[in-house]
Amino acid sequence: MDIFERSLALHRQTQGKIAVRSLMRLASQDDLSLAYTPGVARPCEEIARDPAAAWDLTWKGRTVAIVSDGSAVLGLGDIGPAASLPVMEGKAALFHEFAGVDAVPVVLDERDPDRIVEIVRAIAPTFGAINLEDISAPRCFDIEARLQDIGIPVLHDDQHGTAIVLLAALMNAVRAQGRNLASLSVVINGAGAAGGAIARLLSCKEQDERCVPVGKLRVCDSRGILAPGRENMTDPKRELAQDTNPDGQQGTLQDALRGADVFIGVSRGNLLTRADVSTMGADSIVFAMANPVPEIFPDEALAGGAQIVGTGRSDLPNQVNNVLAFPGLFRGALEARATRFTNAMKFAAVDAISQHVKEPTYGTVLPAAFDRSLAVAVADRVAAAARDRTPVPS
Amino acid sequence: MDIFERSLALHRQTQGKIAVRSLMRLASQDDLSLAYTPGVARPCEEIARDPAAAWDLTWKGRTVAIVSDGSAVLGLGDIGPAASLPVMEGKAALFHEFAGVDAVPVVLDERDPDRIVEIVRAIAPTFGAINLEDISAPRCFDIEARLQDIGIPVLHDDQHGTAIVLLAALMNAVRAQGRNLASLSVVINGAGAAGGAIARLLSCKEQDERCVPVGKLRVCDSRGILAPGRENMTDPKRELAQDTNPDGQQGTLQDALRGADVFIGVSRGNLLTRADVSTMGADSIVFAMANPVPEIFPDEALAGGAQIVGTGRSDLPNQVNNVLAFPGLFRGALEARATRFTNAMKFAAVDAISQHVKEPTYGTVLPAAFDRSLAVAVADRVAAAARDRTPVPS
Repeated sequence: MDIFERSLALHRQTQGKIAVRSLMRLASQDDLSLAYTPGVARPCEEIARDPAAAWDLTWKGRTVAIVSDGSAVLGLGDIGPAASLPVMEGKAALFHEFAGVDAVPVVLDERDPDRIVEIVRAIAPTFGAINLEDISAPRCFDIEARLQDIGIPVLHDDQHGTAIVLLAALMNAVRAQGRNLASLSVVINGAGAAGGAIARLLSCKEQDERCVPVGKLRVCDSRGILAPGRENMTDPKRELAQDTNPDGQQGTLQDALRGADVFIGVSRGNLLTRADVSTMGADSIVFAMANPVPEIFPDEALAGGAQIVGTGRSDLPNQVNNVLAFPGLFRGALEARATRFTNAMKFAAVDAISQHVKEPTYGTVLPAAFDRSLAVAVADRVAAAARDRTPVPS
Repeated sequence: MDIFERSLALHRQTQGKIAVRSLMRLASQDDLSLAYTPGVARPCEEIARDPAAAWDLTWKGRTVAIVSDGSAVLGLGDIGPAASLPVMEGKAALFHEFAGVDAVPVVLDERDPDRIVEIVRAIAPTFGAINLEDISAPRCFDIEARLQDIGIPVLHDDQHGTAIVLLAALMNAVRAQGRNLASLSVVINGAGAAGGAIARLLSCKEQDERCVPVGKLRVCDSRGILAPGRENMTDPKRELAQDTNPDGQQGTLQDALRGADVFIGVSRGNLLTRADVSTMGADSIVFAMANPVPEIFPDEALAGGAQIVGTGRSDLPNQVNNVLAFPGLFRGALEARATRFTNAMKFAAVDAISQHVKEPTYGTVLPAAFDRSLAVAVADRVAAAARDRTPVPS
């Protein structure tokens, strides 16, 4: 059986990937009186008196909701909430396995951004943080922005998780080559959730003293380079066109690629050819992160002249996978009881991930997904950044 | 330490009562490719093609959401969503321990019934059933009624769970005494969620061939007996006044109790005295279920002439506790993939619980909360009733 049929069989065998267990023994009348009525009245009263006590007395302080409407799932697109559940369960399993964070999927049969915002706001007392997942652009930007004041951190992982890992990978690729970020001409293909977040991190749009902007940055969508004055652009794309593309270049992805040093793909499978890569500058860097089929497979990109190639796949080298960021990022936020994710927390995660690789090579620009020490290292740095910057919960 | 301080300490020690675990091994790159990208695309596609496959390929088929707004928690009243979390976690722990059902709390910072209905409808694809919990009357009636068409079973446990266990207890009390339900004069004190549901079950308001109505039934609220024409009644109370109280008696709880055979309290602690009980008929039955302090403690009720006394507390005899019903009720519904809870399913649960006690005595009218065979017996009967009656999911 190939990996897809084996995955299907495994899902059927265990009826999904996560389960809930009881942490208290429930073997006697006395146990029941402690866990439930009448004893449970006491922690309830404690939280009623001081809502912050919920962090100590319930699962809230270690639990993340993974919220999706199933509108932009992996490379599968708009498959709806029920069909997105296996992905959300997979993330929950990874949260548990890599960071000891308890996570539960909450998939929503709802597409209206106003209502999604209302729903997440309403369920927030249950959880310590919210991971928005696989919500299509541009709705995801608006939804995430409007949830920044709900008192717990809310992060659209497709945007920031991918951007954080990608930036860590790029920093290490550059370290391995002996180049520096400021000298690079970078092309991002894909102006959706992840592409926008990567562009904002690379262009230092999100102000932070740690940020080193790349030399030249252009973003393409399926119609070509985002440029001021171009037609067919949404508001977020218009903003990206202003913050990038310093020469106002118009044209296709192929026009943008000519002479560029770095290709970052967060778009669709098989849209880049060996010939495209060969027009790039010498020793180019290619991150082809479309899932499950990358924009170009590594052997093709290397044959086209690339020196460092990464994809989003766990079965290929240099996997740029959110799993390197989100477990530690959320664990750090929970540990610090942060009320939101700040840019300082995101850059702390970038630093922690890139520095976790002592000597990056062309084939190893990122820590292994199974490096058990990574999530804790990221969490420590993120929590420290949160304690520095995050206002104390009111 | 008393039970309340021990409970507080335990909650602090384990940071709540439930945790999420991964069912799939995640120890290698291959594991990750199966549980997450790229393999996970296969079960996603399968569910996109056939939504019913979510029951087999995800946790949906074994998972219940426990939804509360914290407006009517135990005997604590309106303590809000965060403070209600320990109760919801307790139920989740019991679901797991007694019936192997995975349950997660979802507490809502929302009071508007329209919006609560919208939220539950939106999150429904994530779960196999919804347990509404500790939502105040009369909002709970409306909310539950409007959620009957969402494709998965929705039950307000404070109403039906309590009513099911109480009816099983009353049937066995009557068996132990050698009396019959049809000869009894019953007074229910409390016309909220539980009181209304008990009254509807006892009066055979919910039509089912299994239903045997009690001889005479009156319901009191804090202003006295519900009677046609009385002032200060909500719509649900007006309905109860019509379906009960055959003589149209007006008066206080004390007036209703004179000569009655059964007192059922779902109201407030310490409102019944030994003297009140002594005005009831000989060998009276008292179920004083207010939590955590019952309407009257057993020793007082027995001193007043009661022959059989039950409370809601796990540390006193004849505990009328939802835990006897809800684990098996929901497990049966999940096993049958029921789309709603029917009256046949509720009466099947009543039968299974009462028949589980072979020879009821005054001190043992219900199975022990720790009888590990009960939930499965209830689930089997409920699933059979569901398969008989429930339309096949579309």
